[in-house]
Amino acid sequence: MTEQSFDYLVAFQGERGAYSEAAAVNFFGEGVTPVPCRTFGEVFLAVEEKRADCGIIPIENSLAGSIHRNYDLLLRHDLFIVGETQLQISHHLIALPEVELADIRRVLSHPQALGQCENSLSRLLPGVELVATYDTAGSVQMLKESGARDAAAIASRRAAEIYGMSILVEGLEDNPENYTRFLILEREQLYPIGPSKTSIVFSMYNVPGALFKALSVFALRDVDLTKIESRPMQGKRWEYLFYIDFAGSLAEDRCANALDHLHEITTFFRVLGSYPRGA
Amino acid sequence: MTEQSFDYLVAFQGERGAYSEAAAVNFFGEGVTPVPCRTFGEVFLAVEEKRADCGIIPIENSLAGSIHRNYDLLLRHDLFIVGETQLQISHHLIALPEVELADIRRVLSHPQALGQCENSLSRLLPGVELVATYDTAGSVQMLKESGARDAAAIASRRAAEIYGMSILVEGLEDNPENYTRFLILEREQLYPIGPSKTSIVFSMYNVPGALFKALSVFALRDVDLTKIESRPMQGKRWEYLFYIDFAGSLAEDRCANALDHLHEITTFFRVLGSYPRGA
Repeated sequence: MTEQSFDYLVAFQGERGAYSEAAAVNFFGEGVTPVPCRTFGEVFLAVEEKRADCGIIPIENSLAGSIHRNYDLLLRHDLFIVGETQLQISHHLIALPEVELADIRRVLSHPQALGQCENSLSRLLPGVELVATYDTAGSVQMLKESGARDAAAIASRRAAEIYGMSILVEGLEDNPENYTRFLILEREQLYPIGPSKTSIVFSMYNVPGALFKALSVFALRDVDLTKIESRPMQGKRWEYLFYIDFAGSLAEDRCANALDHLHEITTFFRVLGSYPRGA
Repeated sequence: MTEQSFDYLVAFQGERGAYSEAAAVNFFGEGVTPVPCRTFGEVFLAVEEKRADCGIIPIENSLAGSIHRNYDLLLRHDLFIVGETQLQISHHLIALPEVELADIRRVLSHPQALGQCENSLSRLLPGVELVATYDTAGSVQMLKESGARDAAAIASRRAAEIYGMSILVEGLEDNPENYTRFLILEREQLYPIGPSKTSIVFSMYNVPGALFKALSVFALRDVDLTKIESRPMQGKRWEYLFYIDFAGSLAEDRCANALDHLHEITTFFRVLGSYPRGA
């Protein structure tokens, strides 16, 4: 990690030390200026209203699947995806300095983090009380402020460091294949050169073979799809919006042609962004 | 609704009066014997262990989208989808008899129901405290047992009737286009005659054009897809399982041929069920 300091404001959901902040540091290096937001919706607003230069949001987890709320927000706001990064999620058991494992009666964290550490917790701390909170890093902050010595939080190493807390147990997650993919959002669209990905959203007439026709515009041009997701269309019962990621840039002719072709056969169509492919 | 009484045990998640119970009555008529279960996982177990003849689970809501937990459970258990039914979700504000709207300080319900009534609540009861519970009908039961006269619950008309409570305000939902589709699960597979749907799940080698090839087995035989959903494959980062619903029965040659063809090109393939198409 580089230690340069620059005034690049990055909005993310959660308190200082959130996994999204760690992902931002992965992507930009240390020295970005964090802009913590209460909700995902506020991350989008912070960028739109120029209180942040960019936002970073989780879009899918390798165990839990897509974060559908963020697919809906991408549609509702006019920001562009300009990058992606993935982070291995490693959950640590965090407490005030000098607190010991035997002191712990309560464990605080986001319900998803508690769920992902269920087996480890029942082995290490049988019968411990689990307390659901709205945020992993926020639980560490709460613990710090309360001074409670009978409680621990589950969060990132970064959260422990930021709040000056101790890590009681490292790598508490039951399944180590736990990765989250994040998207970087800005106000301006990119036309990247080199290995890229493009994300789009569209809807079609509800007729037989519609989705097959949509996918054919990519297959006919050897454009590889990396993800497809469907979400309900508000106000149209059992009709769907499709979100597709494909390998390629808006700057490539075959991709631009595929999208022109798709435009012809869709009822709604939008490019969410074209960006360098993550490692 | 028919009033015949028969000893057909139907498992569903939630307490008596849950929307799933109302959907079961829609499908089977009155007189089914309800088997309330604490979780969706327990609904599957109740049917597998023959404590119920069938189960009913919500699979998608027209506003909120798919219930992904139930897609995962369909894969993990060996039950078959034998029917589908949809229910218009109408939320009512329910309290003890003779309680008035002006008495209400707290409103209890499942977070999704509270969210779907957000605007109505802030208009009718500005500043009221919202209390999240695990279950809509369960909140009515809690209210009944506590005898609280300063609280109301949001749940179905059926829940108000079962617990002998009053409806203070009808149709509290902000968006009336609120429908949930439910699946009926049994231990034996059907081969239905007449208008039908079939649900399958499969995975493919992660190669360019894989999903396009999978969809082509249907398009080449004019088999219409009605839904596609993707879920992460556990232990394989950024690889997916696809869940597809199509119009047609396993008893039809063109559908059986399409599935034979799909079987040739998939790494994993399973029929989740073939069932009469819901109204």
